[in-house]
Amino acid sequence: MLQLNSKHGTQSSVNNEVAWIVTRSDILFRNPHLEVRDETVLIPGEDRPRRWTVVGRKKAIVVAPVTVEGRFVLIHQARIPVQRWLWEFPAGQVDETKSPTLEQLQDTVLRELAEEAGYELRPEGSLTYLGHYFPSQGFTDEENHLFVAKPVRENGVGFQPEHAEAISQHKEFTLDELRSMIANSEIQDANTLALFARMVAAGIVW
Amino acid sequence: MLQLNSKHGTQSSVNNEVAWIVTRSDILFRNPHLEVRDETVLIPGEDRPRRWTVVGRKKAIVVAPVTVEGRFVLIHQARIPVQRWLWEFPAGQVDETKSPTLEQLQDTVLRELAEEAGYELRPEGSLTYLGHYFPSQGFTDEENHLFVAKPVRENGVGFQPEHAEAISQHKEFTLDELRSMIANSEIQDANTLALFARMVAAGIVW
Repeated sequence: MLQLNSKHGTQSSVNNEVAWIVTRSDILFRNPHLEVRDETVLIPGEDRPRRWTVVGRKKAIVVAPVTVEGRFVLIHQARIPVQRWLWEFPAGQVDETKSPTLEQLQDTVLRELAEEAGYELRPEGSLTYLGHYFPSQGFTDEENHLFVAKPVRENGVGFQPEHAEAISQHKEFTLDELRSMIANSEIQDANTLALFARMVAAGIVW
Repeated sequence: MLQLNSKHGTQSSVNNEVAWIVTRSDILFRNPHLEVRDETVLIPGEDRPRRWTVVGRKKAIVVAPVTVEGRFVLIHQARIPVQRWLWEFPAGQVDETKSPTLEQLQDTVLRELAEEAGYELRPEGSLTYLGHYFPSQGFTDEENHLFVAKPVRENGVGFQPEHAEAISQHKEFTLDELRSMIANSEIQDANTLALFARMVAAGIVW
């Protein structure tokens, strides 16, 4: 059985704000990967609407897989927009809906853990939810949900990334190695940095 | 005089990779805030070019302002794409160029520190560069550079955000408060989380 450890609610419960009113939303460009919208929004408490360019994206998950020995599994992925090979925690989009339930997020975590790294939760393992974050809140509604999967093990099948993805390898790193890679800027993606920050702040790693 | 403490080079020196070859780049959409491109890229070592949708964005800086007492200055900003008021470190884009020098990044840091928070470096203060990160490397070339400004003080003028920005206030937080806000998902933006991760890993906070 999959257990879930969480002190975090789903994304709505951490922001008990009055709903913002979108008075106009025109799609300027759309393809299967993103949607550019010209929106006019009324911020609660203001009387003058603001106009903004918003890029719509699917929701996503990021997972820190931790072995019995306390090692972190990272993948080495070619990232075309930034023209770099990066070491990162596995991550992936939720394809089914833009308002995923916690169960749909968990399913995506386990799917990406297998596809991108070739790992699975051990029978006694569980997922811990560490809340969401916004990769670039100034221009996109992209929202990524952070999980720790512990303990994990290789699934015996190996990683099988989607055709479009260029993942060359995965590797287990100790906490000291992970910390060094963050300190010396070898880790460069928001997903891994944000999840590390949450794990440190929550006292899961130190 | 502005001093710079840095063990990090500029963005190019942390990635000594063979240059990636962009064989085709068509602009699908462009406005003053972003550019959507359809690119075909040859990854070094591969013989089959890959086609990708890339959103081009200006480079940016993020700054953790730290007072003599060790408090962190955060601003409270309305973020229209995610329809939330967020507590964040001050941040801003480099308008002049897409290949900023370290000096241009520093100028942007000091400008945003004044505009968004109403703070300045104290005479004995310095900026520490903690490298760059990519907010969403799967779809945008956006690249943000991370700085600590220490120690800072209020500049006596107050914050004067650009007309388009909705910043309601700034506030100083202790490290314990900052850590709690990260642990309980009150801090939700990649900028603040990434900078916290680098500061922790570099041993600047713990």
